[in-house]
Amino acid sequence: MSTLAAGDVTVVLLAIAALLGTARLLGELARRLHQPAVLGELLAGVLLGPTVLGALAPDAQSYLFPASGPVPIVLSGFATVAVVLFLLVAGMEVDLSTVWKQGRSALGVSLLGLAVPFGLGFVLARLAPGAMGMEPDADPTIFALFFATALGISALPVIVKTLMDLNLLRSDLGMVVVAAAIVQDLAGWMIFAIVLGLMGGSGEALPVGYTVLLTLVFAVGMLTVGRWAINKALPWLQAFASWPGGVLGFTATVALLCAAFTERIGIHAIFGAFVFGVALGDSRHLRDRTRATLEQFVSFVFAPVFFASIGLHVNFVRHFDATLVFTVLGVGSVGKVLGAGLGARLGGMPTRQAWAVGFAMNARGAMEIILGVLALQLGIIRERMFVALVVLALATSLMSGPLLQRILRLRKARRFVDYLHPKAFVHRLAGTTPEAAIRELSLVLAGALGRDADTIAAAVLEREAMMPTGLELGLAVPHARIAEVSAPAIAVGLSEHGVSFETVDGSSVTVVILVLTPPGADEAQLEILADIARTLRIDSVRASIATVGTLTEFLATIRTAPLAHLPATRS
Amino acid sequence: MSTLAAGDVTVVLLAIAALLGTARLLGELARRLHQPAVLGELLAGVLLGPTVLGALAPDAQSYLFPASGPVPIVLSGFATVAVVLFLLVAGMEVDLSTVWKQGRSALGVSLLGLAVPFGLGFVLARLAPGAMGMEPDADPTIFALFFATALGISALPVIVKTLMDLNLLRSDLGMVVVAAAIVQDLAGWMIFAIVLGLMGGSGEALPVGYTVLLTLVFAVGMLTVGRWAINKALPWLQAFASWPGGVLGFTATVALLCAAFTERIGIHAIFGAFVFGVALGDSRHLRDRTRATLEQFVSFVFAPVFFASIGLHVNFVRHFDATLVFTVLGVGSVGKVLGAGLGARLGGMPTRQAWAVGFAMNARGAMEIILGVLALQLGIIRERMFVALVVLALATSLMSGPLLQRILRLRKARRFVDYLHPKAFVHRLAGTTPEAAIRELSLVLAGALGRDADTIAAAVLEREAMMPTGLELGLAVPHARIAEVSAPAIAVGLSEHGVSFETVDGSSVTVVILVLTPPGADEAQLEILADIARTLRIDSVRASIATVGTLTEFLATIRTAPLAHLPATRS
Repeated sequence: MSTLAAGDVTVVLLAIAALLGTARLLGELARRLHQPAVLGELLAGVLLGPTVLGALAPDAQSYLFPASGPVPIVLSGFATVAVVLFLLVAGMEVDLSTVWKQGRSALGVSLLGLAVPFGLGFVLARLAPGAMGMEPDADPTIFALFFATALGISALPVIVKTLMDLNLLRSDLGMVVVAAAIVQDLAGWMIFAIVLGLMGGSGEALPVGYTVLLTLVFAVGMLTVGRWAINKALPWLQAFASWPGGVLGFTATVALLCAAFTERIGIHAIFGAFVFGVALGDSRHLRDRTRATLEQFVSFVFAPVFFASIGLHVNFVRHFDATLVFTVLGVGSVGKVLGAGLGARLGGMPTRQAWAVGFAMNARGAMEIILGVLALQLGIIRERMFVALVVLALATSLMSGPLLQRILRLRKARRFVDYLHPKAFVHRLAGTTPEAAIRELSLVLAGALGRDADTIAAAVLEREAMMPTGLELGLAVPHARIAEVSAPAIAVGLSEHGVSFETVDGSSVTVVILVLTPPGADEAQLEILADIARTLRIDSVRASIATVGTLTEFLATIRTAPLAHLPATRS
Repeated sequence: MSTLAAGDVTVVLLAIAALLGTARLLGELARRLHQPAVLGELLAGVLLGPTVLGALAPDAQSYLFPASGPVPIVLSGFATVAVVLFLLVAGMEVDLSTVWKQGRSALGVSLLGLAVPFGLGFVLARLAPGAMGMEPDADPTIFALFFATALGISALPVIVKTLMDLNLLRSDLGMVVVAAAIVQDLAGWMIFAIVLGLMGGSGEALPVGYTVLLTLVFAVGMLTVGRWAINKALPWLQAFASWPGGVLGFTATVALLCAAFTERIGIHAIFGAFVFGVALGDSRHLRDRTRATLEQFVSFVFAPVFFASIGLHVNFVRHFDATLVFTVLGVGSVGKVLGAGLGARLGGMPTRQAWAVGFAMNARGAMEIILGVLALQLGIIRERMFVALVVLALATSLMSGPLLQRILRLRKARRFVDYLHPKAFVHRLAGTTPEAAIRELSLVLAGALGRDADTIAAAVLEREAMMPTGLELGLAVPHARIAEVSAPAIAVGLSEHGVSFETVDGSSVTVVILVLTPPGADEAQLEILADIARTLRIDSVRASIATVGTLTEFLATIRTAPLAHLPATRS
């Protein structure tokens, strides 16, 4: 009956809180800087690990994250459950029909994306083992195989997270990358199983042939018979068990069982959960509410802890061998990007997309680190190579999102509140006529922007005279194209007594939104006006605005508006 | 860098899956038998622990739940996080204004509910230490204090779960019980801290005075300043962070921090999370979606694992001392039920309600076991007393729900599908006239019930002739009061081409629901007809019924219908 002592309980709770809190904070920061959240989450681990916190406040670091005893074991167990559930959710996002459609491209990406870095790694490790970081007492063949595998592997969790963060996961490109990463990672783990087999392996490991066979049987079985059974089980659970909790409990249980199975047969636990997620997500009986509950909780509570925990494992300063790090990073990235990109190009993708695929596949994240930990435990490598692999993992993961965004020239959907100037929110409009209200809002917006209020008011009133901008449900959106602004600028005014705009439904106007756009930005203007109309049409939003007292409360209302077609994941 | 080995990862995943799966299964079974789900979840642990699985298949049991090594430590850590999050959710359910309103009753319940069993326990332990199970080498004062505390303590998690399962948590009675249990448990833990202080205690423990002071400062601070700050922070998070995930991450982080704080000052971790939950749940800015996501995930994934893990700790057969068990159970229950019940009665509650309060407060669950584990580790008690305390904990927890239900004569809200006979679902009605459809449904329902079809059809047609039962939106509900049935009985028929019932809105009837009730069951008939109308009025339900192929799919559609006013928790 081994339980945690009271002191350990405190540390475990603090450690998880620190990982989660820091990861979420930096994740949000990354998002504000238009980067994928996973970047911030990975950095949280580096901050809290031996590299930064350990250097600045070693006592605090070793109190929160001791190197031995029960605490690191609990954290490791929690991180394992977290990554398993994360891959379950990731799997649920995969649309099998899209994957099949992308089959040809995916096959090329996965084969070349694995073969090129693997071949490059193997040849270099045989030709120049010293430069590649082989320790003098290692077996050259085993080292070369391991080195090649380490360069060839991808990281499904980081790749999926990056694509999710950028809202690309369900796109064709996303599906090519995911399909290729699945095939590649399965192949990578099988090769590593062969390497372990060559070393004599541990007592519990199955023969490699079995691993390959069982993996195929599991994947094919889950996606055929399993999928059929899930599709039968869901209506049954919804009819006879608690709702929606019954499905949640069932899903988590089966995901953990599948994870345990794949872990046992020598493939990492995450694959079982991922494949089950794919089969589950495909069922038309899975309700949106179940999907959203799982996705939100896992993405914002479990996943950040897992991604942050990666950086805890190593001191990046002490074991840093610059030459080795840059060699590994260079050889690994060049091989992977060229291989995967070439595969995508040969599969018929346009050049720009093909590069994007290459950089997306280059993310290695947790997989690399798990591989590194195993190799370190088995004595195939030492700390300096481990650090090089972790840097490869982190650097490629960090690069992946920003490069993808740049290559694909992504931008977020425009929300009108993105352009609302913080000083241009009028809680109580004084004026009760359209002209008075427009002059009032023009004045605050002009003041905030440092422009001339009369010019702005004149332009808006001129547009208003051409066609009144009162819509329905108490909303008016006076607007103008005007050279005074170089980007869209918005002011919001709320009226207690109503402003006498003419409206379609005769309602009294209580929300006036003034929209200025630069000349030529017609698309932006249309998008902003559409967003305003769509958001304010929601009953609960209008009800909430009626009680709003501050700008923050107004923003909170708009940003949490239940807009069905906005992506449920963070963008 | 202590991580889990591959073999341990498999076992951890399997163990959590086994706990969660069994707990959910037995929880649903309990619910089917009209018992609180927590009863099944607690039994799952007894089944999987040394008592049953350990006796039947000792190898499997010690593989899944080894007594030492990393696996039990991970499980213990996971269970700790689970109970912390569960108490967070429980706290969010507490309505402070109700608690204040119930203050007088709650104070009496909590004081007498603690003082009576405590006094009884202390006196008996001093007068007859042998009969109360004191070991010969123990210090009589310390033993008596511990024994008195063990009898006096309640179990907030089990009490809250039982009330939640019975949908009583937000009732006046529920709030009295919860308020009393909070006060009592805080007092109980402080007394235990004093006992530990008397023993010399551990190095890390704070002086008792500090514990009491810091607890008060924390609780009062969180419910005043903390509540104010949370109310400010929520709109800010909703405005500037990811939605709804940002609030989820924030909530989990702060709950873990508060839990760590109360654990550190010598009160159990769950109190910090609970008090934070109360402050958070009270904010008008907390959105329903955040609340539901947290509650569903925690209640159906974390809580079952925690409740099941309680039974793993002990072999109830080997260390079973019948005399001691019955003494402890008798003295503990009598003292608690009488004390708390008397307190409630003196506080002005009706007798029946007062008994209910007594039995609700008697549940001891996890708190008792945590106390027992500590006492065992510190050498205050031995295994046989530990078993007696665990039996006290489980038996009182198991009794609590059923007794509450019986005393309060609870029953669930009637759903019409509860009375739908499984053999009386007609996927495609042949008839297209009301008479043909009524005869068809009467035939299948009569066949299923073993009654005469013509008598039933005649009664329904007679009622139909008096006033047609076509409603709106393609629904008709022919019905009759008839002595042929002793309980309500329902048949459902779907029509592809429409049945020519007259409807209010002229729509063609595609769903015909035949309702038979025994004479005199007017309330049941009204409730059933209202439930049908309310459910079928939902657009998504009708859209889903149009694609239904089987009875199970029909039931799934009805049971998952988004009916706003049905309780979100399981009932």
